[in-house]
Amino acid sequence: MALFQYNFPTRIQFGAGAIRLLPSALREAGKSRPLIVTDRGLAPLAPVTGSDALLRAEGLSPRVFSGIWGNPVASQVTAGVAAFREHNADSVVGLGGGAAIDVAKAIMLMIHHPGDLFDYEDEKPGARAIDREIPYFISVPTTAGTGSEVGRSTVISDDTTHVKKIIFSPRLLAQRVLLDPELTLGLPASITAATGMDALTHLVESYLARGFQPLCDGIALEGVRLVARGLEPSVAFARRIEAGESALTGDPAHLEARGQMLNAATMGGVAFQKGLGVTHSLAHALSTVCDLHHGLANGIAIPYAMEFNERAVPDRLADLARAAGAERPDARGFIAWLENLRRAIGIPHTLREAGVRDEHLPRLVSIAVSDACHPYNPCPVTEADFQALFRRALG
Amino acid sequence: MALFQYNFPTRIQFGAGAIRLLPSALREAGKSRPLIVTDRGLAPLAPVTGSDALLRAEGLSPRVFSGIWGNPVASQVTAGVAAFREHNADSVVGLGGGAAIDVAKAIMLMIHHPGDLFDYEDEKPGARAIDREIPYFISVPTTAGTGSEVGRSTVISDDTTHVKKIIFSPRLLAQRVLLDPELTLGLPASITAATGMDALTHLVESYLARGFQPLCDGIALEGVRLVARGLEPSVAFARRIEAGESALTGDPAHLEARGQMLNAATMGGVAFQKGLGVTHSLAHALSTVCDLHHGLANGIAIPYAMEFNERAVPDRLADLARAAGAERPDARGFIAWLENLRRAIGIPHTLREAGVRDEHLPRLVSIAVSDACHPYNPCPVTEADFQALFRRALG
Repeated sequence: MALFQYNFPTRIQFGAGAIRLLPSALREAGKSRPLIVTDRGLAPLAPVTGSDALLRAEGLSPRVFSGIWGNPVASQVTAGVAAFREHNADSVVGLGGGAAIDVAKAIMLMIHHPGDLFDYEDEKPGARAIDREIPYFISVPTTAGTGSEVGRSTVISDDTTHVKKIIFSPRLLAQRVLLDPELTLGLPASITAATGMDALTHLVESYLARGFQPLCDGIALEGVRLVARGLEPSVAFARRIEAGESALTGDPAHLEARGQMLNAATMGGVAFQKGLGVTHSLAHALSTVCDLHHGLANGIAIPYAMEFNERAVPDRLADLARAAGAERPDARGFIAWLENLRRAIGIPHTLREAGVRDEHLPRLVSIAVSDACHPYNPCPVTEADFQALFRRALG
Repeated sequence: MALFQYNFPTRIQFGAGAIRLLPSALREAGKSRPLIVTDRGLAPLAPVTGSDALLRAEGLSPRVFSGIWGNPVASQVTAGVAAFREHNADSVVGLGGGAAIDVAKAIMLMIHHPGDLFDYEDEKPGARAIDREIPYFISVPTTAGTGSEVGRSTVISDDTTHVKKIIFSPRLLAQRVLLDPELTLGLPASITAATGMDALTHLVESYLARGFQPLCDGIALEGVRLVARGLEPSVAFARRIEAGESALTGDPAHLEARGQMLNAATMGGVAFQKGLGVTHSLAHALSTVCDLHHGLANGIAIPYAMEFNERAVPDRLADLARAAGAERPDARGFIAWLENLRRAIGIPHTLREAGVRDEHLPRLVSIAVSDACHPYNPCPVTEADFQALFRRALG
């Protein structure tokens, strides 16, 4: 009996100014002392200071915890738990990119669950059960990439070994998600491009992943349509704003493109419950070995990965070509579309351009082979395949 | 500030034999005394007797309540509540078509909520709040049509006035949904066709409805793809089985087509949180005035409704044409595809063929105008429009 399971998150609210729902969302849940969990870099900027002020103006008592930078590590979670307790907080608002939202989830977990964070690592033998209360949680993404705002997992690294550990539970789902494109209008072009490629890779790999989950398939294709409309203009606006045309920040076409990308990223986060594939295994190895930004790594790797998949799933790639509006409605056309998009938004064509070198290859291959994503790829990926893929992508 | 809200149901399990998960699903929730709520006509058939036997074999104590026939009415709910209490039940399994699942939801509601069922009518001034506990609920559809298995509402008629009343609450969502195409292999061709057109109409009208809900849009288009693959073969198999080729019941191609339709119906139920449109307002009037089956009414009305929408949303109709694989990838092509499909599965082309007569027109128009669905239609629908639409459809 082949069984396929679908899960969908609840209550997503999208719109310019959606952040203004934050006070009432907390109040409706009977909460008044939220811990705002955010990145160190974001803390002095409008999305955080504005939200904090908004909550205070409405009579709530927020506290900002911004001890998050780089790849999130366990000690940041411990500090966040201490901040939650010191503030006598009653709820968590994860406000930021994927790192901030992931740390927010881990903080929530550790409020009522005893022991060490990594006791709850997914699929670890003897892992403790995630079965206790979790504080009320609202997620507010400020990048359009990871989809962590609708995800059931958090990825936190060990401070010393740097090994990434995944903690998974449906209890980690946000109760409310606020998607406000105004919060993303200030994103630099390079981050817009890299996070956008992350969202696109989630959508593409979900659509191609093994298994029958037609709700995810539909969401993935529609997400690709949104990326095809929104990513290039988002990056183009960001570049012109960086070049001094600051009046363009609030341009309606800019807001529209950012909104498309914010939805596309969330849709990627929903769709990839189906599984991901070979691109993500390449990217995970690149982040671990060469410290590449995850979205950038996906962005460089994806056309090579799709060439690899072409023989196995030409029809599915043709569906993606049609969704993207590629010139040629077939697998080749989709790969060409990916390469053109990448070029337009400034993602390098080769790993070498991103600093990867030949001597990295053996470790890259060994990490990619043992990665958990490629078993969902539509065709099997062997060690030799990874070797060939990294070599091609190296350029 | 334009705000769009998405809600998605949780945990759907699909597969041939998924019904065999029923005992463990109840056990995992700590339940052992389910009330199986089903149609009178279905009670002696395998989906019900088999489920009952399965639960007993696993040591659970089910009771079947099958006091449901025709359009569900409030007295059936009262009888079901009494059966729940007599059995000292701890959970509800809604097993059947839309009527059975709707009555199951209403029974659940009335277990811990005081007063009369219609005190909880949606949007009624002074309606009582749905804020108490609801028994654990698993839905198992045996038709591929209404999508009620993932819906948040129940439609129950007043016994005397026959007025349909909608009760809505996210609390009415099933905790688990089991989609087992084996349970639908025995559906007659006529029911397969009518319920299938209901599912298709949900998908089409959701896609066209006002508002921006890209997750729903993607699900709707993918659902249309599944209907395009599964509906004609499902009806064709049903016809051949009715003609005596009973060996075809378990044919893998039959099972596959039924599985496509079962998913498509669920996807329609998820997508139409976005809103419906003019077709449904026509159909609701036809059911009230002429007692037409809801799916049949949708099936007859939909091409006329799409002709009406053509000027307003030609591009969206073209998207639907491409999803359906219509010969012409434009609005005209989609309407032609609908008409061909309808012809192939035996849905009449005119309302007159279904027994509607000229003298019904005034009441049909007056009910359609005040229906709650057409305000979501992509263009406004006036009384004169309804008049013209009914006239055209009458033939």
